Amino acid sequence: MMRFHGYFRSSSAYRCRIAFNLKGLDYEFAPVPLKDGAQRGAAYTALNPQALVPSLEIGEGEVLIQSLAILEWLEESHPEPAILGRDPLTRAKERGFAQVIACEVHPLQNLRVLNYLTGTLGAGEEQKAAWLTHWLRAGLETCEALLARRGEKTPFCYGDAPGLADICLVPQVFSARRFGVDISDLTHVLAVDAECARHDAFVRAHPENQPDFAA
Amino acid sequence: MMRFHGYFRSSSAYRCRIAFNLKGLDYEFAPVPLKDGAQRGAAYTALNPQALVPSLEIGEGEVLIQSLAILEWLEESHPEPAILGRDPLTRAKERGFAQVIACEVHPLQNLRVLNYLTGTLGAGEEQKAAWLTHWLRAGLETCEALLARRGEKTPFCYGDAPGLADICLVPQVFSARRFGVDISDLTHVLAVDAECARHDAFVRAHPENQPDFAA
Repeated sequence: MMRFHGYFRSSSAYRCRIAFNLKGLDYEFAPVPLKDGAQRGAAYTALNPQALVPSLEIGEGEVLIQSLAILEWLEESHPEPAILGRDPLTRAKERGFAQVIACEVHPLQNLRVLNYLTGTLGAGEEQKAAWLTHWLRAGLETCEALLARRGEKTPFCYGDAPGLADICLVPQVFSARRFGVDISDLTHVLAVDAECARHDAFVRAHPENQPDFAA
Repeated sequence: MMRFHGYFRSSSAYRCRIAFNLKGLDYEFAPVPLKDGAQRGAAYTALNPQALVPSLEIGEGEVLIQSLAILEWLEESHPEPAILGRDPLTRAKERGFAQVIACEVHPLQNLRVLNYLTGTLGAGEEQKAAWLTHWLRAGLETCEALLARRGEKTPFCYGDAPGLADICLVPQVFSARRFGVDISDLTHVLAVDAECARHDAFVRAHPENQPDFAA
């Protein structure tokens, strides 16, 4: 069985959990308590030299890192149900949307980056909040614009079933709420998020429903 | 013909240029002078609401954004020569490596982030240099560890021909040098970079060989 190293609140681990659920894949969960620095311990960095979650052990000593690479591997090795469209153009739009979040928003809200801001750079709580609001809004406003441009307004980002874009959007919306960022004007984003909130795969992947959840 | 919106110094545009060259694809180049803020103008944001380069117009009003999504689209629509391996595990390793750079290093050295640091947060030149050194070293040290773990030491990251990992590594090494970050100890990284520097597709994609290059 696959062994998944994650943390309830990590949005990149949250993405993987949604995909496991959508594809009906079982996995053994190995919690990595980020708040205690477990990701920097020798046991974990032997698996993942980047000291970030998630990591996925897939057997025979092979370990996958980086959530989007894990999602693509899941899609290639367990194709049904698909989380990417059938034609290259749709797939490019789904991947582009996912990367707006994964490559431009999430890295700037990462725990280690926030620690650098408040620690090394001496930013105060107000400056940290302004940083988070600035970058989360910038990214989610791009998501809103991309959703508004769709030819057809589907319940999920790119179709009638959830896929890669939804998998990345929902954890980012969760983070925005957690950090107190106002996104009440982003109506397309909120409509997709509400649709996903009714889907069992998303409900079971929610941080509050994980064994390592702590309030 | 495809119309490519980029900037000579942008490492995400640099990635796309390498892939165009490897696959022998012609494109029309539309420069977006980031230093003048052209990416925030109405003409460009109509194409790309994120106001970042690159963007790729592929005809019939369709525009692709985000470099890794563009690279995957190129691979799916122009498969030969391949920039990803044949089996899911190799592809997952290549994508994971690429994302260490694209999702964890590059976003933190982006012009808009550096401007926020020195502008809004009032960081000095020394603090900006320390930020760059910290994040570029962290990412490239991970790349070094991943290369050191390969079962077989191939001339390129994952094989005898260049692929997605090399496409992301070379522009990041270029950025490290530009920002004065010492990476002289990262011998696996430097060996791959030197191999790529002898490859015509990489030479022609180099920032100094672009029509919009400015010293």
